[in-house]
Amino acid sequence: MSEIRLNVVTREWVIIATERAKRPTDFRNNKEKNHLPRYLVTCPFCPGNERRTPSERFRLPDGENWKIRVVANKFPALSPEVPKTRHEDSGLARVVSGTGIHEVIIETPLHNLTTGLLDAPQLEDLLRIYRARFIEAHRDIRIEHAIIFKNHGEGAGTSLEHSHSQLIATPIVPVQFRDRVEAALHYFDDTGECVICAVSRKDREDGTRIILDTEHFVTLIPYAALSPFHTWLFPKRHSASFASISEEETKDLAIHLKTILSKFHYGLDDPDYNYVIKSSRPQDEGNEYCHWYITIIPRLTMAAGFELGSGMFINSSLPEKNAEFLRSVKVE
Amino acid sequence: MSEIRLNVVTREWVIIATERAKRPTDFRNNKEKNHLPRYLVTCPFCPGNERRTPSERFRLPDGENWKIRVVANKFPALSPEVPKTRHEDSGLARVVSGTGIHEVIIETPLHNLTTGLLDAPQLEDLLRIYRARFIEAHRDIRIEHAIIFKNHGEGAGTSLEHSHSQLIATPIVPVQFRDRVEAALHYFDDTGECVICAVSRKDREDGTRIILDTEHFVTLIPYAALSPFHTWLFPKRHSASFASISEEETKDLAIHLKTILSKFHYGLDDPDYNYVIKSSRPQDEGNEYCHWYITIIPRLTMAAGFELGSGMFINSSLPEKNAEFLRSVKVE
Repeated sequence: MSEIRLNVVTREWVIIATERAKRPTDFRNNKEKNHLPRYLVTCPFCPGNERRTPSERFRLPDGENWKIRVVANKFPALSPEVPKTRHEDSGLARVVSGTGIHEVIIETPLHNLTTGLLDAPQLEDLLRIYRARFIEAHRDIRIEHAIIFKNHGEGAGTSLEHSHSQLIATPIVPVQFRDRVEAALHYFDDTGECVICAVSRKDREDGTRIILDTEHFVTLIPYAALSPFHTWLFPKRHSASFASISEEETKDLAIHLKTILSKFHYGLDDPDYNYVIKSSRPQDEGNEYCHWYITIIPRLTMAAGFELGSGMFINSSLPEKNAEFLRSVKVE
Repeated sequence: MSEIRLNVVTREWVIIATERAKRPTDFRNNKEKNHLPRYLVTCPFCPGNERRTPSERFRLPDGENWKIRVVANKFPALSPEVPKTRHEDSGLARVVSGTGIHEVIIETPLHNLTTGLLDAPQLEDLLRIYRARFIEAHRDIRIEHAIIFKNHGEGAGTSLEHSHSQLIATPIVPVQFRDRVEAALHYFDDTGECVICAVSRKDREDGTRIILDTEHFVTLIPYAALSPFHTWLFPKRHSASFASISEEETKDLAIHLKTILSKFHYGLDDPDYNYVIKSSRPQDEGNEYCHWYITIIPRLTMAAGFELGSGMFINSSLPEKNAEFLRSVKVE
């Protein structure tokens, strides 16, 4: 018997379709193993090919070489050189200029590594650079919102296999963000508590959907996971903005990110996935009802007409079973 | 230079990324032609295999045979046999039972046809059956919302190649629908006009994004199309519910649906696509600010981390150029 669960953070209804429920191991990715070389002469992100990327915006040096590089996207969706303008025609055709920032963060010099397989110090450095670029993006007062995200694998929308993340900063606030802030505000006014603080507390009490629980973070599968193995990483300390993460929290977050991505890698056979840092601006860090977090979406199923047409989701797996499975996956 | 357009109906911001803009013909689907047989002995939807589908709910007869069949989905996401219940645990875990309807509409006895290639009388019959099933679904007072949709091709989420559509009726109202109704209400209160009536009128005056304009319907590419060749079919007469479509309008809609799907088939080489009928309940037909319509989404690009994480879209094509291209595509 199916049930329909409400995701209180995203306000999306999810049909947990137990009639067609699959076992966690049914989602293993049986794709051909692609053994990548450590270095590829044709890859624009490999060392030695630095001239093939547009202007370098940051470099974490490693002697003569580098550990992490941040470069402008070669085909930017938005650009800081475009003056910010806004036009409106009778409320029906609103248009804002393509002012913004679109950066690529090359996570490692090695062509054959991926985020979950980076060693802990490298992953901490990556998170520190995410934070620095996020703060830097918001120094431009034309920027209203920024997201840091990763597309891993072709099924997650990437065309380059060398491990990288992206930052896109926009001159407008996405409606999805506005809607979730509004929902969080109503929850706060009703209960006096931030909805993510409440979900995190309640899920830790319950325990069935928890994957990892440490001093500063909790990794869990949402009660109304939108798709199989959809995962959230919540900071325990309430803060609206990723910009506020401390050095100690950064180290703990690196452990969580490495753990969950390694569990996907070994337990589900390297599935394609996206992750996104969902955060308010640094200026809004003190907001009481917004709470930054990371969402990870393995691309194991496909949105079809029903999902596109209703904004509801059908999840053919049980969040509790998937969390149990992930807890059992051994990582190195 | 990119620009960011607001879709006033969906309230989604779309980056029209002209820096990476592609020509309409770049989206041609170069997949291997799959020449299907007229009949496939292993297909559960082919004539002769009727026992392989669950309970038949409707049949349009053709002498001893049938033209169109409606059957229960073999792996239903929702079922009318489940009693409707609702539980809530401190506002954080809301759950509704999987009460609902999940039907499959087999559009033709022929295995090698697809919706856009059906002849006009068959397509009219299909639309009449859509309407009848939509009205029938809402006779169950536990049903709050119903959508009729089609997944064409593997990239659009279908696993069965024999042409079929689906109806899913849910015991709750999707939040996406609520949000759009609210936006339409605000537009109506601000201007005294239904937002879709206004968009339709303005786009017909402008002309650049129109594909087909007849007595009762207009087919167009939205100003802020979410993805390449995203298309809307608007009825000209204001009505909130598809249930209100007249016999004359049905015939006109069949022409529009056949035209646009044939243009996709011949002009873009049979791309995968989803279409969805977005409609209020029959009971809400008289609503002044909601307006039913059909949306078609060819699956030519993929949502990646940015789209999932922000609810914004990047469209690497120009709506005006794509409309011009579709107008030029000759269909038989």
